[in-house]
Amino acid sequence: MKLPLLFTTFKKDLMVIERVIEEASSSQSAFMRETTGHLLKSGGKRIRPIFGMLCGKLGDYDIEKVKYPAAALELIHSASLAHDDVIDCASMRRGVATISAKWDNHVATYTGDYIFAHAMQLISQLNNPLAHQIVSKAIVEVCLGEIDQIHDKYRFDQSLRSYLRRIKRKTALLIAISGQLGAIAANVPASVHQNLYLFGYYVGMSFQITDDILDFTASEKELGKPAGSDLAQGNITLPTLYAMQDESLSKRIVEINATTDKLVLAQIIEDIRSSGAIEKSYALSQRYLNLAFAVLDRIPSKKQKKNLIEIANFIGKRTY
Amino acid sequence: MKLPLLFTTFKKDLMVIERVIEEASSSQSAFMRETTGHLLKSGGKRIRPIFGMLCGKLGDYDIEKVKYPAAALELIHSASLAHDDVIDCASMRRGVATISAKWDNHVATYTGDYIFAHAMQLISQLNNPLAHQIVSKAIVEVCLGEIDQIHDKYRFDQSLRSYLRRIKRKTALLIAISGQLGAIAANVPASVHQNLYLFGYYVGMSFQITDDILDFTASEKELGKPAGSDLAQGNITLPTLYAMQDESLSKRIVEINATTDKLVLAQIIEDIRSSGAIEKSYALSQRYLNLAFAVLDRIPSKKQKKNLIEIANFIGKRTY
Repeated sequence: MKLPLLFTTFKKDLMVIERVIEEASSSQSAFMRETTGHLLKSGGKRIRPIFGMLCGKLGDYDIEKVKYPAAALELIHSASLAHDDVIDCASMRRGVATISAKWDNHVATYTGDYIFAHAMQLISQLNNPLAHQIVSKAIVEVCLGEIDQIHDKYRFDQSLRSYLRRIKRKTALLIAISGQLGAIAANVPASVHQNLYLFGYYVGMSFQITDDILDFTASEKELGKPAGSDLAQGNITLPTLYAMQDESLSKRIVEINATTDKLVLAQIIEDIRSSGAIEKSYALSQRYLNLAFAVLDRIPSKKQKKNLIEIANFIGKRTY
Repeated sequence: MKLPLLFTTFKKDLMVIERVIEEASSSQSAFMRETTGHLLKSGGKRIRPIFGMLCGKLGDYDIEKVKYPAAALELIHSASLAHDDVIDCASMRRGVATISAKWDNHVATYTGDYIFAHAMQLISQLNNPLAHQIVSKAIVEVCLGEIDQIHDKYRFDQSLRSYLRRIKRKTALLIAISGQLGAIAANVPASVHQNLYLFGYYVGMSFQITDDILDFTASEKELGKPAGSDLAQGNITLPTLYAMQDESLSKRIVEINATTDKLVLAQIIEDIRSSGAIEKSYALSQRYLNLAFAVLDRIPSKKQKKNLIEIANFIGKRTY
């Protein structure tokens, strides 16, 4: 089930946001129209815009204002994917060729930069210095997360804490500020939008942990890329860290490097799957969801709370 | 002569700005400290900060405010160099190894992103939505310029107009807004800061044309990279476009591609140098300087005008 279908009441407003996103690829430069169009057409779950809208509903909701941060955060996410693909030398994303593969790494770099700058321009439409501060601070953290990820590749001695910090920076922060900025655009009071930030942060942690689990458990068709890609590329995620608590499995995992034989790798991935690490990972994902629900006790509106619980459950518990 | 020496009265304030620039590499991440430190230590002429200070002097000058856009614009320039080096696969910049060469393209991409986001954070310290709008709009244009540059490589049928639009986007805009934002940080009225934008734009055009000339005429030691690099990489600049007005030279130039023999290329570069194209290029650079001086007639302060004329002459007429 696609996430937007959960929120049919938002369908019209989502279309407004889609149009703002599409405008990012209506550049004067024909070449840029082609590259950005390619990047943005590949779709996505639109989690960030939906978060923004749901949180905006807690205040003076006006789609003509909420659309700016909602579209901007989705664009920032897309820009980071373009740069991510430079990093991973990935050839497929969501089942289609990446920009790096279709053109080259250089085009991907500048297409990402452009989309990112366009997003900052959308944020500036809010005329709100706080929004600008929140976004730029978050993006600094996102970049730190990406650099950490490069640096931490194949470092099997990393702690659970550094994994959690990395996914906070890489994923949870942008989801957290999606909701907060949607709320700010609707003049929600600070005490409330700060709690919405926290809610989004916990949901985002749960979301990324689930994502990291699915990289082990889902099929290539469901993922749009080969299963086990994370470990194959040296990215050490929660299931691997938990699996390493088993001494004999740990000994085999720490031997993995960029030249490890595919069959050896496939066997290790299979063994991680059946080690209990997946179940433990799901349990941590659930703990973050519970923290998110606890935050909602501090939110006034009953009706919006129901929607927020729904999106949190959808995101945290999805099976593909 | 180094540009800052021209303005000894600003020495103390430049130190304040240098400290803000340095703080960009005092990240929590040790690896990011190393990469950003490497990028930022490579120096530069600090044209943008000086522009910002000079223009700030036309209003309620306070270095504690002017420092934010001044440092931010220099950082944005550095970030674009990091991404530029991904583009050109350059191994040297200002005489030292680039980030791409010392680490890899992926590290260069995210180091650039981080510096860029940090710069946006500095701009947000001004608490001024107009400043945010000006910066994000300019960066969109800078990215368009970079994508154009990739797209226009080895396209010998491009017009003078597309060259001028490209250098406007690539260079002149950031210099233009450096002055404008320095002025805005000092509460200079809109009519004046808009003229300062125009002044910076014309000086920036002159600056980039001079830069493109020097790529043909300066020595490898002066440039910190091999002379004639632009043409060797397929970047078609003003001297080449002018040289192509000579039919027989044009026939040889359009044959250039990525595999052209080095000796053949060296002879063509030599022939462009002696074709009169350099002199014609300097004449256009001078015309832009004259336009800049004409804008100054609309600026009130006599004392600051003298400084602005000095920086314009330094930038437009430098011989290396």
